[in-house]
Amino acid sequence: MNLITQAGSEVQEEGSEEGGGHGSARSESPFSATQDPNSEDLSLDQRAELLNKYQRVRTETDALSDPLSAEDMQLQSMPDASPVKWHLAHTSWFFETFILRHHLDDYRLFDPEFHHLFNSYYNSLGQPFSRPQRGLLSRPDTEQVFAYRRHVDRAIERLLAEEDCSAEVAALMTLGLNHEQQHQELLLTDILHAFSINPLLPAYLEEPADDALSGQSQPPSWLSVPEDTYTIGCDGDAFHFDNESPSHSQYLQPFRIASRLVTNREYLEFMEDGGYCEPRLWLSDGWAWVQKSQRQAPLYWQEREGGWFQFTLAGLQPVNMDAPVSHVSFYEADAFASWAGHRLPTEFEWEVAAWLYRRPDTLSAANLLEKRQYQPVPESAAAPQFVGNLWEWTGSAYLPYPGFRASADAVGEYNGKFMCNQMVLRGGSCITPADHIRISYRNFFYPHQAWQFTGIRLAGDQV
Amino acid sequence: MNLITQAGSEVQEEGSEEGGGHGSARSESPFSATQDPNSEDLSLDQRAELLNKYQRVRTETDALSDPLSAEDMQLQSMPDASPVKWHLAHTSWFFETFILRHHLDDYRLFDPEFHHLFNSYYNSLGQPFSRPQRGLLSRPDTEQVFAYRRHVDRAIERLLAEEDCSAEVAALMTLGLNHEQQHQELLLTDILHAFSINPLLPAYLEEPADDALSGQSQPPSWLSVPEDTYTIGCDGDAFHFDNESPSHSQYLQPFRIASRLVTNREYLEFMEDGGYCEPRLWLSDGWAWVQKSQRQAPLYWQEREGGWFQFTLAGLQPVNMDAPVSHVSFYEADAFASWAGHRLPTEFEWEVAAWLYRRPDTLSAANLLEKRQYQPVPESAAAPQFVGNLWEWTGSAYLPYPGFRASADAVGEYNGKFMCNQMVLRGGSCITPADHIRISYRNFFYPHQAWQFTGIRLAGDQV
Amino acid sequence: MNLITQAGSEVQEEGSEEGGGHGSARSESPFSATQDPNSEDLSLDQRAELLNKYQRVRTETDALSDPLSAEDMQLQSMPDASPVKWHLAHTSWFFETFILRHHLDDYRLFDPEFHHLFNSYYNSLGQPFSRPQRGLLSRPDTEQVFAYRRHVDRAIERLLAEEDCSAEVAALMTLGLNHEQQHQELLLTDILHAFSINPLLPAYLEEPADDALSGQSQPPSWLSVPEDTYTIGCDGDAFHFDNESPSHSQYLQPFRIASRLVTNREYLEFMEDGGYCEPRLWLSDGWAWVQKSQRQAPLYWQEREGGWFQFTLAGLQPVNMDAPVSHVSFYEADAFASWAGHRLPTEFEWEVAAWLYRRPDTLSAANLLEKRQYQPVPESAAAPQFVGNLWEWTGSAYLPYPGFRASADAVGEYNGKFMCNQMVLRGGSCITPADHIRISYRNFFYPHQAWQFTGIRLAGDQV
Amino acid sequence: MNLITQAGSEVQEEGSEEGGGHGSARSESPFSATQDPNSEDLSLDQRAELLNKYQRVRTETDALSDPLSAEDMQLQSMPDASPVKWHLAHTSWFFETFILRHHLDDYRLFDPEFHHLFNSYYNSLGQPFSRPQRGLLSRPDTEQVFAYRRHVDRAIERLLAEEDCSAEVAALMTLGLNHEQQHQELLLTDILHAFSINPLLPAYLEEPADDALSGQSQPPSWLSVPEDTYTIGCDGDAFHFDNESPSHSQYLQPFRIASRLVTNREYLEFMEDGGYCEPRLWLSDGWAWVQKSQRQAPLYWQEREGGWFQFTLAGLQPVNMDAPVSHVSFYEADAFASWAGHRLPTEFEWEVAAWLYRRPDTLSAANLLEKRQYQPVPESAAAPQFVGNLWEWTGSAYLPYPGFRASADAVGEYNGKFMCNQMVLRGGSCITPADHIRISYRNFFYPHQAWQFTGIRLAGDQV
Repeated sequence: MNLITQAGSEVQEEGSEEGGGHGSARSESPFSATQDPNSEDLSLDQRAELLNKYQRVRTETDALSDPLSAEDMQLQSMPDASPVKWHLAHTSWFFETFILRHHLDDYRLFDPEFHHLFNSYYNSLGQPFSRPQRGLLSRPDTEQVFAYRRHVDRAIERLLAEEDCSAEVAALMTLGLNHEQQHQELLLTDILHAFSINPLLPAYLEEPADDALSGQSQPPSWLSVPEDTYTIGCDGDAFHFDNESPSHSQYLQPFRIASRLVTNREYLEFMEDGGYCEPRLWLSDGWAWVQKSQRQAPLYWQEREGGWFQFTLAGLQPVNMDAPVSHVSFYEADAFASWAGHRLPTEFEWEVAAWLYRRPDTLSAANLLEKRQYQPVPESAAAPQFVGNLWEWTGSAYLPYPGFRASADAVGEYNGKFMCNQMVLRGGSCITPADHIRISYRNFFYPHQAWQFTGIRLAGDQV
Repeated sequence: MNLITQAGSEVQEEGSEEGGGHGSARSESPFSATQDPNSEDLSLDQRAELLNKYQRVRTETDALSDPLSAEDMQLQSMPDASPVKWHLAHTSWFFETFILRHHLDDYRLFDPEFHHLFNSYYNSLGQPFSRPQRGLLSRPDTEQVFAYRRHVDRAIERLLAEEDCSAEVAALMTLGLNHEQQHQELLLTDILHAFSINPLLPAYLEEPADDALSGQSQPPSWLSVPEDTYTIGCDGDAFHFDNESPSHSQYLQPFRIASRLVTNREYLEFMEDGGYCEPRLWLSDGWAWVQKSQRQAPLYWQEREGGWFQFTLAGLQPVNMDAPVSHVSFYEADAFASWAGHRLPTEFEWEVAAWLYRRPDTLSAANLLEKRQYQPVPESAAAPQFVGNLWEWTGSAYLPYPGFRASADAVGEYNGKFMCNQMVLRGGSCITPADHIRISYRNFFYPHQAWQFTGIRLAGDQV
Repeated sequence: MNLITQAGSEVQEEGSEEGGGHGSARSESPFSATQDPNSEDLSLDQRAELLNKYQRVRTETDALSDPLSAEDMQLQSMPDASPVKWHLAHTSWFFETFILRHHLDDYRLFDPEFHHLFNSYYNSLGQPFSRPQRGLLSRPDTEQVFAYRRHVDRAIERLLAEEDCSAEVAALMTLGLNHEQQHQELLLTDILHAFSINPLLPAYLEEPADDALSGQSQPPSWLSVPEDTYTIGCDGDAFHFDNESPSHSQYLQPFRIASRLVTNREYLEFMEDGGYCEPRLWLSDGWAWVQKSQRQAPLYWQEREGGWFQFTLAGLQPVNMDAPVSHVSFYEADAFASWAGHRLPTEFEWEVAAWLYRRPDTLSAANLLEKRQYQPVPESAAAPQFVGNLWEWTGSAYLPYPGFRASADAVGEYNGKFMCNQMVLRGGSCITPADHIRISYRNFFYPHQAWQFTGIRLAGDQV
Repeated sequence: MNLITQAGSEVQEEGSEEGGGHGSARSESPFSATQDPNSEDLSLDQRAELLNKYQRVRTETDALSDPLSAEDMQLQSMPDASPVKWHLAHTSWFFETFILRHHLDDYRLFDPEFHHLFNSYYNSLGQPFSRPQRGLLSRPDTEQVFAYRRHVDRAIERLLAEEDCSAEVAALMTLGLNHEQQHQELLLTDILHAFSINPLLPAYLEEPADDALSGQSQPPSWLSVPEDTYTIGCDGDAFHFDNESPSHSQYLQPFRIASRLVTNREYLEFMEDGGYCEPRLWLSDGWAWVQKSQRQAPLYWQEREGGWFQFTLAGLQPVNMDAPVSHVSFYEADAFASWAGHRLPTEFEWEVAAWLYRRPDTLSAANLLEKRQYQPVPESAAAPQFVGNLWEWTGSAYLPYPGFRASADAVGEYNGKFMCNQMVLRGGSCITPADHIRISYRNFFYPHQAWQFTGIRLAGDQV
């Protein structure tokens, strides 16, 4: 059995940012983090580092709301999405509920009603406020929500100033910060969707983000990966969600995978070839979805004056034909792959390939035979950028890894209960916080959903 | 044939406030107002009076938004309701669209996009923006909407300063102001509903309005009205909506009608007697509605700690048992009447009775025989307050009066196209602007709707 | 006050068939019939006549199922419709439940379960079996249902052989027979709808019924009716449903009404003029219905090879352009009338005009002034056939007549509880049993429904 | 790498019944069968054997309809189910469409309309008749459908009498017979569901089937299976569906699996412990399903007079507490497993365990190490009955095996397009034809569906 993905190694590197290396997380937790909750209290340096990271993440979240008015922050354009204001409050609720209530002795709740209002889906904490009605909470207003954030910030600062601040607190803090980073991305996807409804086509950004991905006009190259039993997932000391563990073996057949994502130009070919009108290209449920939703193009595409435009965070922009196609559903990704004569990669194939791409010098068939001694290198050294463009739909259903057990306490409702009916996405997107991206990261959405920054990478069997 | 309701007389009295008495309105208009569009231009006094009324109504609308934040003003809690911000903009759109675009030569649109965004349902002006998504228009923001209002105000002032300002403009102005008064009431009903969703139970008013209607603990008296052919509706010079005309004859059988509305105490008896569980009391569609909506009490009632409370504009308040029951659907009103062994009045019975109540000295059977010479007196002289408490469900479907013709132009989509599936309500409510209430006024809602200020008056046949 | 419609007179004529003339029905009954329940027992002749009518109606119902297989009789193509087998059973259930259980001493229920299975909507008799699932009752099978019919027939024969058979029984028998005649028509409308779903286009009739109405290629003439106070409805001795009473006065403005129904050719003009695409022609709810239902032609029309065909009881047939347009909804009827510059008649106008049409010698304006002495003549004497083609949508909502009271017992759930949200249709159709048609008859359906044999007659104001 | 499942071996045994052993099926086919389509024509014996099997399967299908009336055979109680008559016709359509039209020269279609009516979901053959309306096809009637079956039978007999009947025909015949066996089971599950709606509680069987599974009152034993790389699926000569291939390696962690299914008694404990009211036991989508469906017990359970009954093919019967719980959804199976502190097996674990159970002498840990030389034995030799009781929900989503490719022709729409949103079930049920059951068989349904004969087997990790 080979061990191409030495998850622990990666984790140690990243872990250093987080004061890591202090042993393994508790097995029943929905995450693994850098502190051993059973160890002694945190050192002064550790607490300072944690506070520093806390302040950075919280500030980044605040900054995301800068271009938005109070009215913008209240928008909820569909039940799947949440208002920005709700994201701002819920992430604070998380720190309050899972840390401050239990670990800061004299902590005073900012408002007892918030316990109900900003609970997302933790049934063990009482019935959450009706999700599709989050946009109807004009009260508390935005100012109060920011006051709530500051109230929680002050309390966290007090907690981290305490000499007996425990490793368990550190673990929960890390979870809370990763949770907040997830909501940073959701905040952006949700405001993009909300703005897309408005005929005024409001722009969140003044100008389009620099598109590092343009110019992909060449056909992709294909990486061939030999059959073997690979290690998937991670259980090292560095932070990861519970659904990424336990690390375990997966036998893979030989496969090949494309070096880049499908472009808008390629997707347009599929459209112009009648892709949306040919049931044989689609999964049965996908075809039913096309019929019902009347979808004929990616979610944010509009045809105007003969040309294709796409609604983006910078408003309506002409479609860049050499950029990766984005905001497609799994059904569209799968149908495109069928049309192209390929398929989507499994999440396991994707994870193995991502590790290989990190070490371009191993990409020859010969080197691959030696991959057992392979040591991962920092992301920055990777030549072909494999992750961080768009979340890539895989052909894998979101299911527990062998040996997975969800935590028995409230935080345990984090990932496990969603392991049905959803598909795994890998890789992270251009709006995912950079230090939140991991090769072992498992994102998941329903196959019809397209409002996330989703794209398509092709794969195939070796024959 | 008798003429108990000399609509023209009423109209002349009210008309004097509006510079009325200048002949009849054009027959194809969705309203009738005080100026003859074919007459000469308005006098200086007339223009001054019109401006004065305009400024008063507009100021009143502005004031209604005082207790509300920008976020409050964006709430839309159901497709039937609209955000406050939308009401503020749409009423300005009405002046812009139907008056300024056509009658002010160099009028500059505030924003061409608003033509689409704030069109309510005038299909002849292009497809309106999707009604259930009005709450998703964070842009334009509240400040822009107020700027829009001021932009329209300045233009109207300029228009009324012109010496050749025509009577047609005056007629449209009067329609626009009545239209805005309708939205003043809707603004309040809609924010009440929106606030009712929020577990924080926000209050629009700091304290409950003085309840002039409490203390109705005595049984109602009954007014008996003899059979006759009565005149219903109005076509006089004073303003009225097109659906109130033409005035026409209706033969009525002898009937009796209660002197006051059904109280909360009486309605609670119905509830405690199992009224919501007895299908025989309900119309077939009403029973289906009860089953589906799970309604077991008036819309805003909540049982807490053994007592009944009602969500009001002043937040949650104990139910005042001697006040009229409010926020009931037609189905509930009809079922209550069946339970009580009575029925609802028709809109014609209601209108005749309302005129009689205005003249308490005519209430003896003897006097009624002389009613042909009866002249209406000002509302203030009426002893029993008959109108202005709650909109009273009648047993009449909302249908055109004999001879009714909707206007062929865009404004003609005002009332006529709703003449199906709705029931007539009469009388006006405690949140209807006082000078907007008329005995001939026909309000209309679907039989399941209860978020308006609706109540129940009983009637019966004479045997 | 005039008395154009001497309902009693009509009733006496028809009543003679039914052994009528025995005083008025009880006021609390959902119908009025020929016997006074308080009078002495029925005579031998009366019982014989009643039995004769019973046997005729029951035999007619049986005969309607002749062209159908057991599978056909089980079809239920939408919740509004019922299987033929269910109609056969329910009409027997009616006699069993309201007559035999109470008036035949030793009556043995055919099957106690049928009390639940074949209850249509009488909540006071227990919760009926779910209406949309009537098509799922393969058991009892058709043979058992016919055995049920015969079981009830034998019992009714025994009942009518008893010397002390009361007038109350006669009244209920008459109601039961009229009820069964209603279901004869529904049986045909429902099987037509069910067959319309089947791509094999099954025919119920071997050949099209002789179309007495073809050749209507001339423009209609218009009957002018002067204003007056007319008597509407009936309360005589002859049978009529409770919703047709009490007879009462209605003041009508002068109006005119077309001499024939709108033809397919005329309706096609409306279609070809874009009638289904012009929102201004439609009621607001009607336009929403067109959008949602995607209706673009009458319910059973299909365009094939460039021509229009209509699915009928005789299968698919070319549209006869000179026959009346049928199977239109109220929304379509109303939109057509708007397009044509006319309107639909009210049910009161229709009833008055129908009486006038019975006496063509009264059709001059002069004669109309004398109409107070007018005596109705038998239907057969009427020259222009005014009734019995199609049910004609009126502009009247289905509401109680002044003084209407539904019966307090179970049979009282017959008509009154449907008096909301539906529109009145008048006249009877080509599939209505001839002796079931009455000028005062009030049929009612929801404005979107079109599977009945419905048509359009135009009316207008006199100017 | 081990080869515990020597699919080919199994296949050869079964294959002998089918004239097997003639090489591998074409790779692009949605199935694999015993003939090499490229080989020479079939021998006389082979054709005789095929005909024999054909006649047996067809006769079995016919016999399933014996207890049913024409009306029963038309029932469709939900869109997921089909009428018996439709099953009878569709299975004939399959032979007609994929074999007779192409391989019998002068074949005359029974009725060209049937091509559309009885197409299930093969979009490449034209748009199928609307699935939820299959119950509305009273025509063709049952007699015609049986005539259709005989028409196809005669043609198949002629085809198999031809000397140049090819191996390709044999492969398609085998597919058609397996397809018909699938519908035999569906026919029973669908009529059970349809009868369950009828308050008369009709029984398909006169008496309950002999319950071989009662008496399971002892706790299950647990089989421990060591980690290894196992071969899953099959690609041998014997028939199997395309979704069972290619056979491929799967690395499995050590696991344990219960020796018997969960009983009704055990499931009732879960219910009585509040299992349906505790969100923490449920997947998120499962909890939403419980809330919406109001499910509180297995699909066919009813509580009557204090005891639990179950609606079965033999009508309503008391729940046998020692029999396996049946008609549960995946959500219920998963929640039960959580409550019990276990989990469901993956489909791979299930397949490995099923092979081991076939050879009880290998069940010691020692023997398992030698399992590579293991040869499967006939089912009859297996001591603990592992398959054929109920379809067992696994924790595996229904996805393609590595290397799976659906056929490009119409028959290729068989399995692949459903590989999304469904869960795999293994094992076969008491109503699955015995010779249709295979260890490698992959059944699949949506996680909320419970009208199949589904049950629960527990598994767990080894610690």
